[in-house]
Amino acid sequence: MPSPANKVKIRWLIDEKTGAPNFAMRRFEVAPSGNTPYHTHDWEHEVYILEGKAVATKADGSEVPLGTGDVVLVEPNEKHNFRNIGDEDFVFLCLIPLQKK
Amino acid sequence: MPSPANKVKIRWLIDEKTGAPNFAMRRFEVAPSGNTPYHTHDWEHEVYILEGKAVATKADGSEVPLGTGDVVLVEPNEKHNFRNIGDEDFVFLCLIPLQKK
Repeated sequence: MPSPANKVKIRWLIDEKTGAPNFAMRRFEVAPSGNTPYHTHDWEHEVYILEGKAVATKADGSEVPLGTGDVVLVEPNEKHNFRNIGDEDFVFLCLIPLQKK
Repeated sequence: MPSPANKVKIRWLIDEKTGAPNFAMRRFEVAPSGNTPYHTHDWEHEVYILEGKAVATKADGSEVPLGTGDVVLVEPNEKHNFRNIGDEDFVFLCLIPLQKK
């Protein structure tokens, strides 16, 4: 259950600066062996996997395999992370409500 | 500027039924020569193009080409549609605030 963030690039695609009124779209790129932080917060993530192979670590420590086209709803206050287990970048969209960064 | 919807399939990936508190994720599949309706409503779309080739028609009737990885914010009350101009399905994610269908 690795933490903190490691080999992660984040690009904000849509947010309040581009006129979004309610929620933001970000693109995450996690290099091989990288991971997002294993953490929690009081807002949700809506995640769509664009490419690569990863596992999501859930609140109980169990792992869920993820690949292209998979969808994840991380509920508010649910501990989570994403870890690249492939040889290529793991890329996903992650949307969050605004004013919740 | 075609209307109504033509050759469009919509799949709801995340919504209130799956526990989303604020916004919903849908996947649109538009077959060749198909289009979404040219219409307007008082909520936004946040769009990410997954595959295929299309044009977005804007409020002034002008057209914007779209391909894989492109992002569109359709603002509330902005007239719009998406029209497949390729030989393959045009597939995109479209997210909207909840209670705004």
